Amino acid sequence: MKLATLQNNTRDGELVVVSKDLKKAVRVPDIAHTLQYAVDNWHTTEAHLQEIYQALNKNMLANAFEFNPTQAHAPLPRAYQWADGSAYVNHVELVRKARGAELPKEFWTDPLMYQGGSDHFLAPHQPIQIADEAWGIDFEAEVAVITNDTPMGVSAHKAEQSILLLMLVNDVSLRNLIPQELAKGFGFFHSKPSSTFSPVAVTPDELGEAWDGKKVHLPLLSTLNGKLFGSPNAGIDMTFDFPTLIAHAAKTRPLVAGSIIGSGTVSNMDRSKGSSCIAEKRMLEILESGHAQTNFMQFGDSIRIEMLDKDQLSIFGAIEQRVEKYSHNT
Amino acid sequence: MKLATLQNNTRDGELVVVSKDLKKAVRVPDIAHTLQYAVDNWHTTEAHLQEIYQALNKNMLANAFEFNPTQAHAPLPRAYQWADGSAYVNHVELVRKARGAELPKEFWTDPLMYQGGSDHFLAPHQPIQIADEAWGIDFEAEVAVITNDTPMGVSAHKAEQSILLLMLVNDVSLRNLIPQELAKGFGFFHSKPSSTFSPVAVTPDELGEAWDGKKVHLPLLSTLNGKLFGSPNAGIDMTFDFPTLIAHAAKTRPLVAGSIIGSGTVSNMDRSKGSSCIAEKRMLEILESGHAQTNFMQFGDSIRIEMLDKDQLSIFGAIEQRVEKYSHNT
Repeated sequence: MKLATLQNNTRDGELVVVSKDLKKAVRVPDIAHTLQYAVDNWHTTEAHLQEIYQALNKNMLANAFEFNPTQAHAPLPRAYQWADGSAYVNHVELVRKARGAELPKEFWTDPLMYQGGSDHFLAPHQPIQIADEAWGIDFEAEVAVITNDTPMGVSAHKAEQSILLLMLVNDVSLRNLIPQELAKGFGFFHSKPSSTFSPVAVTPDELGEAWDGKKVHLPLLSTLNGKLFGSPNAGIDMTFDFPTLIAHAAKTRPLVAGSIIGSGTVSNMDRSKGSSCIAEKRMLEILESGHAQTNFMQFGDSIRIEMLDKDQLSIFGAIEQRVEKYSHNT
Repeated sequence: MKLATLQNNTRDGELVVVSKDLKKAVRVPDIAHTLQYAVDNWHTTEAHLQEIYQALNKNMLANAFEFNPTQAHAPLPRAYQWADGSAYVNHVELVRKARGAELPKEFWTDPLMYQGGSDHFLAPHQPIQIADEAWGIDFEAEVAVITNDTPMGVSAHKAEQSILLLMLVNDVSLRNLIPQELAKGFGFFHSKPSSTFSPVAVTPDELGEAWDGKKVHLPLLSTLNGKLFGSPNAGIDMTFDFPTLIAHAAKTRPLVAGSIIGSGTVSNMDRSKGSSCIAEKRMLEILESGHAQTNFMQFGDSIRIEMLDKDQLSIFGAIEQRVEKYSHNT
């Protein structure tokens, strides 16, 4: 099943069921007005939404209309939790290596995760507005899951049952603000502006054999200014799978329905697959030639993030954003 | 005006207006079912809620009933953002001094702030359930504000207008998990389990002269196992006031209505005022005698956090919690 949220001048938008081919949508006010409501009541809403989805795919719904991803909001325009892992440890190791630092051994066994801001997400086609180009604007292409209620102390084994939906993420990062922010010791804040999510969230069964209950075994495509930048496979070199990330997030507190847990930048050891962020490419350049050649994003640059199934059809729709200068009269 | 949320077996509880003396409450379903809804629509709800509040204080409402703080949830049982500052830099300096580390000079000019989990808050009388006493269970008594929508890049001057409501917080911390977590570089996660908020949130005018638009000039009382532990004045030694903390939080992204911004542990240079967390007391003991004498909280220990006005009446009601062992069959 595929679900999206259309912009309708409310804070949470309007839930729609989207057809498998992403061409048609239908409103479902009798089942749920918003995705948060659907997730809050998943035990009663899921079956009804699935029925609508099947009928929509068979072209049986007279009230269906054309799905326009430029009118889509993030599936959850605001959420109660956005916790982002860094599950591709190869990526973390690279970043460290480029600055001459060893990766602590426990990074291979103990997941890295940060608490992100979740009150304000960007729509998949919304410009990324940043006040200063010098902050080092970067994209980060990731996969994320939306969870159901999950008890504190859940095991990774049981956490698999918490996964309701999957999405793609652009975890926009301001690279040049990160060093001094992390040096302060309290994690990211200014260096992580609003994140962006794919037009559509899908139930795991939509991925077919590409979903093994733990990882998504498909390439994640990042296209910078119209040129393919990376296509690493999200199922390869993922040191910590989604159930492990959920169990990590829930170690000392429960997670409520609608919590979003991210994979971190998707990255493969096979360098021919490219990268899912500019920072990684710069690290590889530094390791190879001593200095970075690729610039961070400039105003006007565009990024497209997408995932195709084995028939080359888009699963989640595309994140397509341009970077713009933000100005605000303070 | 005083507002609270009663538990009613829904995720967001039911909004009630509470009388100034905290004795009576009244439901307001015609204005707003939940506090998040009231805050989302503050420009239309505020005046109506104020009218009810005035009538309630004059005993003019037939549908008023006794306010029972043990049935109160957190004013926002789940929120879209909980960002906690560390505005009493004296406290941060102490913690550093006790481990022999210098406080970087910029800590006096650049606020420390971390992104907290906001999907699951504890009710003011709910037990603090922790799986392991060895994690170093501590309370942190703080003041927090709930903001309105706030644009990215807002100035501290304009941020003052964003403050809708104030609350007290127990920012429960697991001290022995903090060192290795911060060493990983991504900030707090496991070391910050669910936070607790006071039974009542109040509009700034409720504080009278104790509110200057920026700080709360009253002592914050923490009572551990029935003994007064600290009563530092929240208006003294607050290096970064609330508008400054809000502007800091909004530097690279907007804040949506219902965002909670915390002060961090309230702490005065005047040591006779005691402390708002056990960690600070332990640091003072280490500096004085070379080792800490006060233990972190054990299962069965209780903490009460409250603030009284100049007539010694409770403003927010009291946070009153006991620490319990959490056990979950994984």
